[in-house]
Amino acid sequence: MCELTVYLLEDGREEKVMEDVAAITPEGERLVLVDLLGQQKVVEARIKELKLLEHKVYLTR
Amino acid sequence: MCELTVYLLEDGREEKVMEDVAAITPEGERLVLVDLLGQQKVVEARIKELKLLEHKVYLTR
Repeated sequence: MCELTVYLLEDGREEKVMEDVAAITPEGERLVLVDLLGQQKVVEARIKELKLLEHKVYLTR
Repeated sequence: MCELTVYLLEDGREEKVMEDVAAITPEGERLVLVDLLGQQKVVEARIKELKLLEHKVYLTR
């Protein structure tokens, strides 16, 4: 399996946004995150880095 | 493990860009892809969708 944990980097801090993320879709200035259970979260942010070996996605504003 | 295969969607076609991608980093208008062996590829594209359950990333221009 390949779920990722999504973090937002802001003001030098690392805030966990969502766990078990199964899909990420940019829509304009936003990202739509969907987890394994189908729960959806929309974040005003963009992808800064995907580190797949660590199962982490870092977002920034 | 969580390696992804990266595809570019262009003119209705799906072109494979890179396999076993371990990291993706947007840099301006480009994406830097790095595979498990540390090989790097720079693509002028942006992320259209990440489908982690299918281990696929779709890019677009």
